[in-house]
Amino acid sequence: MNDSTWSTSITQIKPNEIRIRGFRVEELMGKITFTEAIGLILTGEIPDEKVTRMLDAILVSSIDHGVTPPSTQAARDSATTGAPMNASLAAGILSINRYHGGAIADCMEMIQDSLCRCSEDNPKSCNSSSVEIARELIISYQASKKRLPGFGHRVHSKDPRTTRLFMLAEELGIAQNGVAMIKTLQNVIGDTGKELTINVDGAIAAVLVDMGIPNDLANAFFIMARLPGLVAHVYEEQTTQPPMRDIDVKLHRYNGPEDRNYTDEKHE
Amino acid sequence: MNDSTWSTSITQIKPNEIRIRGFRVEELMGKITFTEAIGLILTGEIPDEKVTRMLDAILVSSIDHGVTPPSTQAARDSATTGAPMNASLAAGILSINRYHGGAIADCMEMIQDSLCRCSEDNPKSCNSSSVEIARELIISYQASKKRLPGFGHRVHSKDPRTTRLFMLAEELGIAQNGVAMIKTLQNVIGDTGKELTINVDGAIAAVLVDMGIPNDLANAFFIMARLPGLVAHVYEEQTTQPPMRDIDVKLHRYNGPEDRNYTDEKHE
Amino acid sequence: MNDSTWSTSITQIKPNEIRIRGFRVEELMGKITFTEAIGLILTGEIPDEKVTRMLDAILVSSIDHGVTPPSTQAARDSATTGAPMNASLAAGILSINRYHGGAIADCMEMIQDSLCRCSEDNPKSCNSSSVEIARELIISYQASKKRLPGFGHRVHSKDPRTTRLFMLAEELGIAQNGVAMIKTLQNVIGDTGKELTINVDGAIAAVLVDMGIPNDLANAFFIMARLPGLVAHVYEEQTTQPPMRDIDVKLHRYNGPEDRNYTDEKHE
Amino acid sequence: MNDSTWSTSITQIKPNEIRIRGFRVEELMGKITFTEAIGLILTGEIPDEKVTRMLDAILVSSIDHGVTPPSTQAARDSATTGAPMNASLAAGILSINRYHGGAIADCMEMIQDSLCRCSEDNPKSCNSSSVEIARELIISYQASKKRLPGFGHRVHSKDPRTTRLFMLAEELGIAQNGVAMIKTLQNVIGDTGKELTINVDGAIAAVLVDMGIPNDLANAFFIMARLPGLVAHVYEEQTTQPPMRDIDVKLHRYNGPEDRNYTDEKHE
Repeated sequence: MNDSTWSTSITQIKPNEIRIRGFRVEELMGKITFTEAIGLILTGEIPDEKVTRMLDAILVSSIDHGVTPPSTQAARDSATTGAPMNASLAAGILSINRYHGGAIADCMEMIQDSLCRCSEDNPKSCNSSSVEIARELIISYQASKKRLPGFGHRVHSKDPRTTRLFMLAEELGIAQNGVAMIKTLQNVIGDTGKELTINVDGAIAAVLVDMGIPNDLANAFFIMARLPGLVAHVYEEQTTQPPMRDIDVKLHRYNGPEDRNYTDEKHE
Repeated sequence: MNDSTWSTSITQIKPNEIRIRGFRVEELMGKITFTEAIGLILTGEIPDEKVTRMLDAILVSSIDHGVTPPSTQAARDSATTGAPMNASLAAGILSINRYHGGAIADCMEMIQDSLCRCSEDNPKSCNSSSVEIARELIISYQASKKRLPGFGHRVHSKDPRTTRLFMLAEELGIAQNGVAMIKTLQNVIGDTGKELTINVDGAIAAVLVDMGIPNDLANAFFIMARLPGLVAHVYEEQTTQPPMRDIDVKLHRYNGPEDRNYTDEKHE
Repeated sequence: MNDSTWSTSITQIKPNEIRIRGFRVEELMGKITFTEAIGLILTGEIPDEKVTRMLDAILVSSIDHGVTPPSTQAARDSATTGAPMNASLAAGILSINRYHGGAIADCMEMIQDSLCRCSEDNPKSCNSSSVEIARELIISYQASKKRLPGFGHRVHSKDPRTTRLFMLAEELGIAQNGVAMIKTLQNVIGDTGKELTINVDGAIAAVLVDMGIPNDLANAFFIMARLPGLVAHVYEEQTTQPPMRDIDVKLHRYNGPEDRNYTDEKHE
Repeated sequence: MNDSTWSTSITQIKPNEIRIRGFRVEELMGKITFTEAIGLILTGEIPDEKVTRMLDAILVSSIDHGVTPPSTQAARDSATTGAPMNASLAAGILSINRYHGGAIADCMEMIQDSLCRCSEDNPKSCNSSSVEIARELIISYQASKKRLPGFGHRVHSKDPRTTRLFMLAEELGIAQNGVAMIKTLQNVIGDTGKELTINVDGAIAAVLVDMGIPNDLANAFFIMARLPGLVAHVYEEQTTQPPMRDIDVKLHRYNGPEDRNYTDEKHE
């Protein structure tokens, strides 16, 4: 057994005093947004306005994807048996793994590996050599029959979230080598005649690389983003469906608000 | 078995189109904050600026409470055995129940019961009668030896989050009968000579009553708020502590950033 | 905070010594069955041969129910996303609640309530009065539109596990008032012309009442029994199906061993 | 989306008929033990008497280890917050990973690798070469600073479960190359002067290798074995401890049955 003192640097608690990374929580309340608080608790500093807007976009992008994802199905399977909210959410989160939401860390690693090789091979002209590196990488994945993390989607051939994330990353000056490298990978794939486009995991991965977020936190972003969506599904299941029903995902019908546009232009 | 079509009103998915409560997700990205998206996905409408600021304050208030809460301990217990991030988070969420984080729904119900009795008994002069109702309620809880949900904390005798939440709720014009009723309850308890103050669960409960959030969503707010804190703890455990350690919570030491003030005044 | 010493009476650990309820574990290994050890750890004593055989029958009865139960679906939903075994099992267990596997405790309570009323009303002639009590109970459930726990099944109109459990309980001399009462309830329902038969949860509940198992342990029996079934499904999913597949339960086909008889007569 | 029919070979369900791997469940009830049913559902066949006795010993060996393991702590952390039984068990199971209970699969792989190299290098005289292979393996683990899976325990320097498992495996004629190889590994470690003995995970791993159980099922054996122990702890927590207590594992005191001997000799 290990009896020695251990350290934590997240939150300090004293009677009637709660300090998050050094700040009194009541001083932050009403002043910073939840997204800024997420940045603070994960990195130790309140992110600046641009990073915050990028984080908001990432979190909004993945907040929900309807009833078909395995995490949503597992959460509803749990809810229909009478589980409380937290247990249903846990079942959902347990269904976010390598093949669903969990490709972000793998894709970040792939991008970082590529960037490493890039800088080693040809430090001054990464652009010219990156195509070569991308080709080698894709050939090695094909040879070992591994899925390319961050590419392809069972519903979307051209994911609208990817386009928007890259646009924002450019606009906010966040896009750097990571975004460039994954786009190179996509181009190289396109050259081979395959239609395999960057999915939202891949786009988030590239942006997180450029934001300097550690890989080990990557999948947590998807989980944090998706949690409110899971809450909405569990609540809908609990309040509108009979218990112990046979959930046939194929037979669902959307009957929510009709198509509408968001016209508030406050950020642009 | 039940083969009939079932309805969902949260998100509509078509190839290359994702609509959250009617809005294209890519239109929301970069324009609304994560908190606004949480409001949208849970209620169907993007909350206005005041409600958003209140929601942000609620979510920030509960983002973390150091290493001692059972949810944090369970998440770290899981992480030290080598669990991946999502499994550790699930273990943490499974430890958020009636006696930790989960009193919000119970407290909302208690407030709503009191308000109901108030309006039935004396519809025109709730203020004068609410003290009577509060007295009866407290006597009935004492008689049945039930804990009063939303009151008392094992560390804080005067929770700074409670004070700040009520201040903001007043400032933003959100505080109504719910906040008034829980304050009445506290005053009545104070008159009996006991020192039992409103904790953060109680404060959130009162504000959610006044915002019209359904009780069944109440505990989800605590879970959504606390998730980033759990992420930070699991990440810290994974990256700074040896595996399979004997976690003695009493022996922890805070070694994070020193006390600092948040001086950005952008909201005030 | 509470610093006082707390007690546990399950297992005593010293260096190189593990005592389960007083017994050295290595003395039990090779001598008692897992089921006897389950009895020991839960009740403090090794059950006798008849009780052990009854426990075995209960555990065997609920070991699996194919791919359709929500717990199996949630476990497979988790597995298909790449979750490790333990996370998939946890997702499955989280989907065992009031409406699936979790009716055992509710049904035990209903039986015990009925037995209580029975002995209060008419201590000497429970048999004659139990029909009356059963009638009242069913009327009260119908009036409040509550499901009768332990009755009905979405697939089986006459559950073969129920028949067998009752037969064994009679044969082993375990069936007492609990089994009698649930059969009375079934008869009374039959008299009303409804076809609602005792399901496996109800049968287990009645037998557990007669074995004196506490209600709070009831659902645990279903969870312990079903765990190996969940293991088999997760393993089958991991080893025979592609990742991130769209699991349509309706489209499954059984391709396992053909119908066969168990001819070993060692117990009879 | 993939609409094709998929196969399962575990359990076939028809109205009023449940067949486990081909057998009617009611025919198995009362005839086979739970352990035999576990063997059946996992492998497709009812294990013979010797294998069943070995499986029983494995399951009994790991049924509980007192209050200190992380899985027990996580389950109690969850229970003290008011979680239902199944959620507390899930939290416990989520804390069974690589460094706690989860070394079985890793150790099996290590043993199998060693056996492979053994037969490749020197097919006819494995015994003489296995020491060499064990030495190489240990040097490579030391070089990469990896833990040797299945060796060492934070409480036991000589685990009584290990000794008993090996004794039974010999007695039942189950011990083969797997048990031999892990013993060779231990001897080679002993020669280096280190005191690192085979723990229960290692012993189970060696026996499972010799029983031909697939690696991917290995950790499931520990989880199935430990579940009843977790049930006992959650039940004890729920029924004997106050809610939301501060669980200090160091301050626990065993107050269960005194030391006693198991004198039933029915198997020997």
